[in-house]
Amino acid sequence: MTYADLANALRSAMAKQDTVAIENTVTEFQPADLAEFLRHESTEVCLKVLAHLELTERAEIFGYLPMSLQFQIAEEMTIEGLAQLLSSMESDERADLFNMMSEERQTSVLKRMAKEEREDLRRMASYAEGTVGAIMTSNYCSVPEHSSVEQALERVRKTAPDAETIYQIYVLDLQHRLVGTISLRELILTKPSAAISSIMTTELITLGPNEEQENAAKSISRYDLLAVPVVDEQARLVGIVTYDDAMDIAEAEATEDILKGGSIGDLEGSFRDASGFTLYKKRIFWLLLLVFANIFTAAGISIYEDTIAKYAVLVFFMPLLIGSAGNAGSQASTLMVRGLGTGDVQMSDWFKLFSRELAIALALGCTMALAVSMIGAFRGGADIALIVALSMVAVVMMGSLLGLSLPFVLKKAGLDPATASAPLVATIADAAGILVYFAIATAVLGL
Amino acid sequence: MTYADLANALRSAMAKQDTVAIENTVTEFQPADLAEFLRHESTEVCLKVLAHLELTERAEIFGYLPMSLQFQIAEEMTIEGLAQLLSSMESDERADLFNMMSEERQTSVLKRMAKEEREDLRRMASYAEGTVGAIMTSNYCSVPEHSSVEQALERVRKTAPDAETIYQIYVLDLQHRLVGTISLRELILTKPSAAISSIMTTELITLGPNEEQENAAKSISRYDLLAVPVVDEQARLVGIVTYDDAMDIAEAEATEDILKGGSIGDLEGSFRDASGFTLYKKRIFWLLLLVFANIFTAAGISIYEDTIAKYAVLVFFMPLLIGSAGNAGSQASTLMVRGLGTGDVQMSDWFKLFSRELAIALALGCTMALAVSMIGAFRGGADIALIVALSMVAVVMMGSLLGLSLPFVLKKAGLDPATASAPLVATIADAAGILVYFAIATAVLGL
Repeated sequence: MTYADLANALRSAMAKQDTVAIENTVTEFQPADLAEFLRHESTEVCLKVLAHLELTERAEIFGYLPMSLQFQIAEEMTIEGLAQLLSSMESDERADLFNMMSEERQTSVLKRMAKEEREDLRRMASYAEGTVGAIMTSNYCSVPEHSSVEQALERVRKTAPDAETIYQIYVLDLQHRLVGTISLRELILTKPSAAISSIMTTELITLGPNEEQENAAKSISRYDLLAVPVVDEQARLVGIVTYDDAMDIAEAEATEDILKGGSIGDLEGSFRDASGFTLYKKRIFWLLLLVFANIFTAAGISIYEDTIAKYAVLVFFMPLLIGSAGNAGSQASTLMVRGLGTGDVQMSDWFKLFSRELAIALALGCTMALAVSMIGAFRGGADIALIVALSMVAVVMMGSLLGLSLPFVLKKAGLDPATASAPLVATIADAAGILVYFAIATAVLGL
Repeated sequence: MTYADLANALRSAMAKQDTVAIENTVTEFQPADLAEFLRHESTEVCLKVLAHLELTERAEIFGYLPMSLQFQIAEEMTIEGLAQLLSSMESDERADLFNMMSEERQTSVLKRMAKEEREDLRRMASYAEGTVGAIMTSNYCSVPEHSSVEQALERVRKTAPDAETIYQIYVLDLQHRLVGTISLRELILTKPSAAISSIMTTELITLGPNEEQENAAKSISRYDLLAVPVVDEQARLVGIVTYDDAMDIAEAEATEDILKGGSIGDLEGSFRDASGFTLYKKRIFWLLLLVFANIFTAAGISIYEDTIAKYAVLVFFMPLLIGSAGNAGSQASTLMVRGLGTGDVQMSDWFKLFSRELAIALALGCTMALAVSMIGAFRGGADIALIVALSMVAVVMMGSLLGLSLPFVLKKAGLDPATASAPLVATIADAAGILVYFAIATAVLGL
């Protein structure tokens, strides 16, 4: 059955309150699909459906739900039910949910959990949002340094039901320090009596728990890892970040960069489910900032008010010219910001890219000048055509070089290059473009 | 040693032609890091470094290099060397390289490969770029339907050295049809005598080889898979796409969307390494299209040339108003395009989002109107303040609703919603904004 069929079957079973049908349908869903279904339903429906699932399945599906919905559902649950659920959730997911709960509820729920899980939850919940610590899991599979392959495999079998991955195994010394890693693939290919220490990899890629979570996604993607280990300052293993979490982070980071590129504050979560007020707050800051930046453009115009009064035709070409400066600038900054974001472009590439952009912008400017000078000749004669053509080359080059340079400058100053959004670059290019245009006009017309 | 230390050590060993030092340094690199080093070196240096590696390592590192560099190096290799290299590469990567080679070289290289690999290469190379077929690998691990767990594990051990992943195992019937999957985790947790068919998962998530490769990334990310199987129309397994390739696709797709958002054509590959001419081509189309779209704005202005000549102060507020329309529109379209891209927003959400946007845009417009009306009062008195305030509310609402709707309309028409780039929305909002502004001005001033 397709997702739509299953969703319909579940809806009609719920309407009929047919318990057997509900249970049958629910188990046919992929966990991610059932979560997708629940996302669009009320908290009440979610609670009912979740009640029909076994604890481990309930915990898995719960982990797929958006944080805000998880919280709403958790608020409706009994303390006992919630403690059970938390015990069965992945250690990174339960820490996130735990952090949203009231202090009172946190205390009650901790009382009802086993000591080991309680300590794990406390530790995991202590890392700041956005750090590697906040997304790592402590459900990894580790073996002591002096094991044999056979002993290690035995250990893997034992931890398999709880570990988030058993395909990467972490080798620890007596002080819990990470001394090596080994893949399950290597393990099953090696003879059982071999020593782990003789076959493990000792060139380790590790992260600290306080690093930005973006780094986990970058390491996993760059080195094609299944998981990356997280160690504290004493090199002790504190957790791992798995590839599936890394994919989610990479998507969230791309979204953040895209929104910045549209000059919107970081939304953190679903656009669909965000409140109107949140969206207002995320947008008004940049809109106001940009409107005040536009005053410079306006000021540029006011200097030339007399010229405009005499040659109203010059106003006709204003949107074409400043629009083109802004568009060329948006293109250049978009390319640069993304290049810096993915690591395609390094700071040392600056000179090479600037020289290339100089040539590209000249070519773009000339092509555009050719296009608009014909309109210029038609609307205002040879003088206007000349002014428009010269201005076009100048503003396209200026916009492009500004768009290319601003992300570099921001990064050099330790700021996020993505702040050089298309609207910001376009607004600055507009203001400068107006001045260039009227300066050229004044010179050519001999005013 | 850090990456920078290793890179320096390798450079100095190369300069001294110290073979032993080169070999020692080269093996200390992570494969991805050595590839990063080679990316910045000449083809000649790449060939020298690669010659110091064993075949399997050479093939692995080669696979990390950008396609254009792979091709340049391959062109310098002997046919024998190239055939050897291709034989050791991942089946998806070698097909990409093979497709770039001249027909003559393809024929010579195929002659020197073993029959099985030759056929695999021919089949893999036949899928169009951008499809699932072009990125899948045929190095998967499969077991016959009627195996026991013990037999399956034996089979896994045998195929482990060549398979891209052994953690997902595909269960096939006699006609090579995919009937189930099982993870290595389940396999090692089950007693050896159990039948595979009794423990395998039969609710399968599969893709067709001609689907868009984006779908592979979406399936893997949504269902947290290690790999997704690809089946032909007869349900026969033809390959798998692994999570690491899915991460690369997701990154490439995000880049494509970001560039579209900056109105740049699809670049396919590195911005840093792209030629000036390629970048010119990818940018000029949109720049020209937008400049001609700006003519509508200009035409709007020319209708009101008399008004402008009388009230030059109106020109002062033009950039503020049309800039704000464009910026609000860019924000709304950026949010929508990303929402549709990640699946956060569905087409059925249209009405809900439109109503919410109406309220948000009204709030944004009023805030902005308050800000600019003060400047309006100061620069031109009460009439101008009123005109500017009314126009601001109108253009911000118009821009926002346009930005929200255009991606929807494009998607409904079967086009890519990402085409509703910030510059396109801004340009359309500009043109409409001018008309609204001068219409309000004419009405208020009683012209």
